[in-house]
Amino acid sequence: MTYDLWYWTGIPGRGEFVRLALEAGGIAYRDRAREEGDAAMIEDMARRANLAPFAPPYLVAGDLCIPQTANILLFLGDRHLGPKDDAGRHAAQALQLTIADMVVEAHNVHHPVSPGLYYRDQKPESLRAAEAFRRARMPKYLSWFERVLDDGGPWLLGEAWTYADLSLFQLLEGLAYAFPKRMATLAADIPLIAGVRERVRALPQLADYLHGERRLPFNEDGLFRHYPELDGD
Amino acid sequence: MTYDLWYWTGIPGRGEFVRLALEAGGIAYRDRAREEGDAAMIEDMARRANLAPFAPPYLVAGDLCIPQTANILLFLGDRHLGPKDDAGRHAAQALQLTIADMVVEAHNVHHPVSPGLYYRDQKPESLRAAEAFRRARMPKYLSWFERVLDDGGPWLLGEAWTYADLSLFQLLEGLAYAFPKRMATLAADIPLIAGVRERVRALPQLADYLHGERRLPFNEDGLFRHYPELDGD
Repeated sequence: MTYDLWYWTGIPGRGEFVRLALEAGGIAYRDRAREEGDAAMIEDMARRANLAPFAPPYLVAGDLCIPQTANILLFLGDRHLGPKDDAGRHAAQALQLTIADMVVEAHNVHHPVSPGLYYRDQKPESLRAAEAFRRARMPKYLSWFERVLDDGGPWLLGEAWTYADLSLFQLLEGLAYAFPKRMATLAADIPLIAGVRERVRALPQLADYLHGERRLPFNEDGLFRHYPELDGD
Repeated sequence: MTYDLWYWTGIPGRGEFVRLALEAGGIAYRDRAREEGDAAMIEDMARRANLAPFAPPYLVAGDLCIPQTANILLFLGDRHLGPKDDAGRHAAQALQLTIADMVVEAHNVHHPVSPGLYYRDQKPESLRAAEAFRRARMPKYLSWFERVLDDGGPWLLGEAWTYADLSLFQLLEGLAYAFPKRMATLAADIPLIAGVRERVRALPQLADYLHGERRLPFNEDGLFRHYPELDGD
């Protein structure tokens, strides 16, 4: 079965966590909004009436419509990628949901007042939010992921990569884009997760995708935005 | 098997979503931190070393340690409560994760700058965040849940309640506590989800719990806080 992924066309955003899993798993899919446009996605959501997702991304698998990034990855894990044992499944989901929590906080840095307002309308609040995120939240989250790998590894759950490693890669890519100065300072404290990032980047299954033209670059419409005034050592 | 739930003792918080599922399912559990104190929980987390949860709540089921609210509910759904078919499982998780997204935004109202600072240190930012949440985000989320029930019901996924209904109940309870004026204004627009709230409140399985002394009241240390200056029509 070829799956349909629907996600906004202009940003990597949350859709990218799903794309990495599909690509690394060699799973057949169509990137529907990128083929047909955002308007087609909005129409598709409306057609689903009371089963419409609250927001993209969502994956359509035959009669199933699966919204929410972590939920999609759970589905892809169970059907394709693993882990398939109970301990692994719930450990991967716990990691994914913690990555999702940090993603929300990274987005909150440039949208502390509301996701419904523009950054330019919440800049003073963003400066304060960025300071707190860089000082307190980044070390707290990143040292937690580092600790998961302590005495273990080389992947988060041990000997084999899971979708959580792919998502940690994307999280670290995004943080490095948004906060290059801060990530440079923190680098010495997070060698193990930096290792996961490099190992994901070197996965043969991802070589074509990561070095090809389909992978969307980060930009200032997405989750991770590089506003120099929000970065710092 | 008797499960161990670990969560902070002083607030309903995210632990309450798990408690409602355990109680409604008649599932045997011990509320460990409430028996032994928060310090015992912190020690328990530390003992788990590289498998420690990022944050409570977490559920211990024999050798399994399951962090993250939605992940715990997935586990309880699969083992006990249902839904157990693929469509139902992923639909319930999508609902749960959307409820979790709104919970984060409701918390952000009084912590827009950072979860690591006190409310009193971010009051001007909170006033702006509350205005945006009340005006834009509350109607957007609540009308989406209302739409899920449109032409369906009486429960979110149809004829039988799932953990998502219990969580929607707790979300609505929290919003009514934190934003009584705003919820009174919105009431006319959300009769269907108000019906879910009333049906959960009337579940015979929850009667003892909801009317007993173990259920923790909302307060100003938790996710949902009643600060009158943040509410409004």
